[in-house]
Amino acid sequence: MREVAIIGVGLTKFGELWDVSFRQMIVEAGAQAIEDANVDGKQIDAMYVGNMSAGQFIRQEHVASLIADHAGLVPIPCTRVEGACASGGLALRQAFIAVASGIHDIVVAAGIEKMTDILTEQTTEALATAADQEWEAQIGATFPGLYALMARRHMYEYGTTEEQMAMVAVKNHHNACFNPCAQYHMKITVEDVLNSAPVTYPLKLLDCSPITDGAACVILAPAEKARRFTDTPILIAGSGQASDTISLHDRPTLTGIRATTEAARVAYKMAGVGPRDIDLAEVHDCFTIAEIMAIEDLGFCKKGEGGRVTEQGETALGGRIPINTSGGLKGKGHPVGATGIAQAVEIVQQLRGEAGKRQVEGAEIGLTHNVGGTGGTAVVHIFKRGD
Amino acid sequence: MREVAIIGVGLTKFGELWDVSFRQMIVEAGAQAIEDANVDGKQIDAMYVGNMSAGQFIRQEHVASLIADHAGLVPIPCTRVEGACASGGLALRQAFIAVASGIHDIVVAAGIEKMTDILTEQTTEALATAADQEWEAQIGATFPGLYALMARRHMYEYGTTEEQMAMVAVKNHHNACFNPCAQYHMKITVEDVLNSAPVTYPLKLLDCSPITDGAACVILAPAEKARRFTDTPILIAGSGQASDTISLHDRPTLTGIRATTEAARVAYKMAGVGPRDIDLAEVHDCFTIAEIMAIEDLGFCKKGEGGRVTEQGETALGGRIPINTSGGLKGKGHPVGATGIAQAVEIVQQLRGEAGKRQVEGAEIGLTHNVGGTGGTAVVHIFKRGD
Repeated sequence: MREVAIIGVGLTKFGELWDVSFRQMIVEAGAQAIEDANVDGKQIDAMYVGNMSAGQFIRQEHVASLIADHAGLVPIPCTRVEGACASGGLALRQAFIAVASGIHDIVVAAGIEKMTDILTEQTTEALATAADQEWEAQIGATFPGLYALMARRHMYEYGTTEEQMAMVAVKNHHNACFNPCAQYHMKITVEDVLNSAPVTYPLKLLDCSPITDGAACVILAPAEKARRFTDTPILIAGSGQASDTISLHDRPTLTGIRATTEAARVAYKMAGVGPRDIDLAEVHDCFTIAEIMAIEDLGFCKKGEGGRVTEQGETALGGRIPINTSGGLKGKGHPVGATGIAQAVEIVQQLRGEAGKRQVEGAEIGLTHNVGGTGGTAVVHIFKRGD
Repeated sequence: MREVAIIGVGLTKFGELWDVSFRQMIVEAGAQAIEDANVDGKQIDAMYVGNMSAGQFIRQEHVASLIADHAGLVPIPCTRVEGACASGGLALRQAFIAVASGIHDIVVAAGIEKMTDILTEQTTEALATAADQEWEAQIGATFPGLYALMARRHMYEYGTTEEQMAMVAVKNHHNACFNPCAQYHMKITVEDVLNSAPVTYPLKLLDCSPITDGAACVILAPAEKARRFTDTPILIAGSGQASDTISLHDRPTLTGIRATTEAARVAYKMAGVGPRDIDLAEVHDCFTIAEIMAIEDLGFCKKGEGGRVTEQGETALGGRIPINTSGGLKGKGHPVGATGIAQAVEIVQQLRGEAGKRQVEGAEIGLTHNVGGTGGTAVVHIFKRGD
């Protein structure tokens, strides 16, 4: 397998983009990435796109063909991959494998979701199709409820508090204020979170990531050719993916995501690093409890201590291991199919030293962690500066 | 890149399977393939599944996790890929790339669609999401209408007749009678086709492939390890994929599919063979005109002669280049996400000499051709006997 580097990135504004269509968003992110990579569109050999459910959100399947068409990429191979909210991470992984294999050189990995073109209750229903339709969604167990079960058990087993969960949201909203693409530029307090509308105990509205439109794009090349395009190639040093039962009730534990642990194990091994070597990470904080579980499952702290290390500021900008400097899914927004790619965009910008007011000084190794459903799919990537 | 072989195949009965669920179908096809490959489930390293739209057909996204769960494959990486009716072919290609790259050894490529759990008019609407929603589907241009435009132009430019198109259906129904998994075991005549209910001129009901439930599965391994599992490994000698505009009206011609020509060019080059070396092929006959265009675009005859060579029996069992010995989409059935994998199952059975009454004697090289939409995506694979 060849070494693989990211040579360019692009990201749209995240938010409720009423005046921008699916096809406009992907073209915007793609054009940014092509310019950033100093690549001619004709040099691109293939594209993978992560998208959870354009079929339900905009009544459009076959989106890879649509994107190839509107991005001027015809006739190259363009393939959609889907793993619910991990779709973006899966697209990155397929692009990585394609370049590593030698079958393609310059490969685009994109992610996109247009979520606000249908009614909010339809959105919740569409998202619930990432859960087990027969055993979970049809009996009303949508994602806030499922993650609330995990939160309750985490509180019971480890004494995690509602305040600690709220601190995840406070931190990520803080970080999002420094990210021009973020959906929210709105600082919040622990009290704001605790007093926000109850969704499903113990989760309040401000514990939940929002509904978001957005697209993201990265361009990959063999590491040996990357410096033809950029002075700051970022290596993909590790890639891990794992699955678990789609239903929460079939798992031996509710307080962690086994697919995360397994995907991380594979990615760490491939990269030849461990959790202590990671300078910063973008993790899948679809709900605040999800970030607490993620930093435990990824090995940044012991199981059960995620709430405490958050409270102690270890995951804040300037802390021991800054988490979700982009604002995360909570502050930056969560266009489900785009999230995994947007995470990679943030890590690339950080490792290049281009993250502005949210820059982690001296960052050399970063990690992304993208989850589908309640953990039926997880993908972990590890990135290193290419010098 | 490593050489890749298929070591096992599995296929459910195709048809309107009212009493079988999505998860039962995939487990059945998978178990067959595992047994056929003499593989222990624990030896499987990854899975790709082609599925067009479980989100619309059974309100279930994240199907790779669901399948990993129900097939007992947790925690290995399981990824859904989608390219409308080419989803199966894309899954095979991703599995091929994964094994060729060296990142995984034993990889499952599966395809599945459960289409009959919703009303027929909803099925047509769901399938139309593979066309451009804004420029085609929303104005009523569903697939029979779009392929009818192609048929009309082919008739105008090349003199192709309704009778010649009907002969495609007659041949494929004939072949399907010898395939125990086929949806139809019903011989038809040219008169039956011409007298069947008009759908959209010039296409009649029997020019159209049916709505089908079904699942298919193949298991891939590095060629160097394949003989540990089977005495008859079938090599994947070539893999090509291409895209085109999703909308028909944006293309310079209606009488062929450019993505087919391009995907075939790449696959032939990789395999080091040409159209004359192919002993038999499974092509994407979603409508009878599609088979006529496919055999032209793949180089089995000159452009415009597809109708004539069909009439002359060249594509029949025992003819110069037998096409769709399985019965094709028309006779075997077309569970959209499964079709690309089911095509590979047929070619593997033929190259092993296990195709019973539909066996092409001495077949050594076979080809599969899988199309998404009206040709926004096409995938071509070339298979060789591994001895």
